[in-house]
Amino acid sequence: MDYAKKSLELSEKHRGKLEVNPVISITNREELSTAYTPGVAEPCRQIHKNKADAYRYTIKARTVAVVSDGTAVLGLGDIGPEAAMPVMEGKCCLFKAFGGVDAFPICLDTKDTEEIIKTIKYLAPTFGGINLEDIAAPRCFEIEKRLQEELDIPVFHDDQHGTAIVVAAAMINALKVVKKKWEDIEIVINGAGAAGISIAQLLLRFKPKNIILVNSQGALVEGMEWMNPAQAEMVKVTNHNKEKGKLETVIKGKDVFIGVSVPGVLSAQMVSTMAEKAIVFAMANPIPEIMPEEAKKGGAAVIATGRSDYPNQVNNVLVFPGIFKGALQVQATAITEEMKLGAARAIAALIDESELGPENIIPDPFDMRVPDAVANEVASVAEKLGIARAPRK
Amino acid sequence: MDYAKKSLELSEKHRGKLEVNPVISITNREELSTAYTPGVAEPCRQIHKNKADAYRYTIKARTVAVVSDGTAVLGLGDIGPEAAMPVMEGKCCLFKAFGGVDAFPICLDTKDTEEIIKTIKYLAPTFGGINLEDIAAPRCFEIEKRLQEELDIPVFHDDQHGTAIVVAAAMINALKVVKKKWEDIEIVINGAGAAGISIAQLLLRFKPKNIILVNSQGALVEGMEWMNPAQAEMVKVTNHNKEKGKLETVIKGKDVFIGVSVPGVLSAQMVSTMAEKAIVFAMANPIPEIMPEEAKKGGAAVIATGRSDYPNQVNNVLVFPGIFKGALQVQATAITEEMKLGAARAIAALIDESELGPENIIPDPFDMRVPDAVANEVASVAEKLGIARAPRK
Repeated sequence: MDYAKKSLELSEKHRGKLEVNPVISITNREELSTAYTPGVAEPCRQIHKNKADAYRYTIKARTVAVVSDGTAVLGLGDIGPEAAMPVMEGKCCLFKAFGGVDAFPICLDTKDTEEIIKTIKYLAPTFGGINLEDIAAPRCFEIEKRLQEELDIPVFHDDQHGTAIVVAAAMINALKVVKKKWEDIEIVINGAGAAGISIAQLLLRFKPKNIILVNSQGALVEGMEWMNPAQAEMVKVTNHNKEKGKLETVIKGKDVFIGVSVPGVLSAQMVSTMAEKAIVFAMANPIPEIMPEEAKKGGAAVIATGRSDYPNQVNNVLVFPGIFKGALQVQATAITEEMKLGAARAIAALIDESELGPENIIPDPFDMRVPDAVANEVASVAEKLGIARAPRK
Repeated sequence: MDYAKKSLELSEKHRGKLEVNPVISITNREELSTAYTPGVAEPCRQIHKNKADAYRYTIKARTVAVVSDGTAVLGLGDIGPEAAMPVMEGKCCLFKAFGGVDAFPICLDTKDTEEIIKTIKYLAPTFGGINLEDIAAPRCFEIEKRLQEELDIPVFHDDQHGTAIVVAAAMINALKVVKKKWEDIEIVINGAGAAGISIAQLLLRFKPKNIILVNSQGALVEGMEWMNPAQAEMVKVTNHNKEKGKLETVIKGKDVFIGVSVPGVLSAQMVSTMAEKAIVFAMANPIPEIMPEEAKKGGAAVIATGRSDYPNQVNNVLVFPGIFKGALQVQATAITEEMKLGAARAIAALIDESELGPENIIPDPFDMRVPDAVANEVASVAEKLGIARAPRK
């Protein structure tokens, strides 16, 4: 099927992919006087008296902003805010279809870090959460960190954390399949941008023996002058043996390859130099770092990609709808590392031990148990952490 | 009916009044691959090549932002962005219900003029138009003026221009009823804020004999130190005879009273001092400057209010859905004075001469001929002015 053509046709037919609808009917004077003046003054008064009532009487209770500056859109790069809109609209569709969460796309006509932060803070009264999307690194780190500090609603950069959570979920089950333990495994993450760093951070919580971040310049290790501040932070807690060199050198003897990089950088030959029962997650889109057939030739025991036409699809849609659904349910003030870990474990747990296998480590994107499993866990962890402002209904 | 209670109940039941929905279905892998990656990359590419294609492939083609800073909400005043949300959500409901225009509420957490201007400019890629709402004067003048200069999409402050257009429409027909001509009438506008000034500006285009703006301090006339810059501009083109004094003095002998002020400031006695066949538009909400029964006692020939329980309801909903519908249809770059005049004339023309009477000068808010009549005229004027970027379909 020609998805590009079909996507173009559908977008043109509907002029975009979203619509904003009243949930109430306005067909006579009484309904008009309820939806608008004079009736509407009453919820205004209540919220003016008690700001927390915004969650009671407005869409803030169930609506997320999907915000981008259009600088790192899919594999297309810095294409600008107008051209980023189809992706953000699509993301909002997935929020609703999978999580029942209302989401609205906001594409900003500025690339300035401080201006983006300020703008999102100004927008915050309308929304119950902020999903950052396709913002280039390293700007995205600062934007997310500052907004988390300065806003009292959850802020979540899906390109980083959504990917990290679904990778962690897949890894939990992959290790069961190959019968290895976290404390024994060495992981190479190819790609040291926003996603690679976030994956490393989350996997570190499982205390693996070692993680090495690699990019096109080679392994990240202390003293490399080309590293950005976020990368420099990471080498303090990764690459314990200070290994140097390109991917083909570093990959030797390692248990796990995680690719968030570019097509074709991993060969069957390279996989064959990895440890026994190697795990290969090749998530470059739409063409992975190595095609599953090749990885298998190299001896990989478990293979995952971002593709829907192979088993074990690592897809963020397993994560973000449930994450925000759960956070909104309890009016959580943030999405913490503990909530991300909980989400990963909840996703992994949906594959029963009896069904687990090399080609079944992660639920299908259309497994509709996932969003609620994630939401329940996220809400429950928020309650335990004391960052829930409302009880679950 | 207790609209306040009902409004509260409905808002709480639905948690707000709007929802964001996909217009496409996402129930299987093919649909997912079309709505999101990999298919979605194609409309992105097209828009990246040609920015104008945003109107072809995204919701920009049919979506308006309803933006407020929460500083002048209904009669409630500066209640803040969270508490303004119910009004903005209601407004968005009316946009869709009456004009088929998608609209999303944005309540900003800043009252700074420059910050509001900058923020709206950053948001502009997402939207095809900006409806400013409930922003306090005189800030609202500067914000609208600057955005009109600096953006290439229509910017419209409904509290000013929506009210002005519907007043102009009602006045066109009221003059027919009393058989007076524009060049012979003297108009007193009570209320010299955003709405009063905008009404004066639009009515001046009909070349009335005289307009006098009055506020709680008295008639606006050269040399009054308390005037803001917008008011100081207005006295150059109004109050030709430099009349001074409070409303009760200035109203004597005048043909028209237009109130956008506070309840009860006009008495039957004052109306009785007006010219023969006086026209009284008393639009303070929910209680007018004078109740229709009292105005009649004073001898008024035509009476209009903002209320739905009396004849001649002056309601902005007759204007803004059609204005934006028409502007979006032709991708107009602005909403000009000529388009506003056209809208007023189109609304007035819907009352046939045979139906015209003291209690029928303006269509009912639920007269569904109105939005299309306004839209057609607005689009047609935009085409004539050369500010339409697309042909009508």
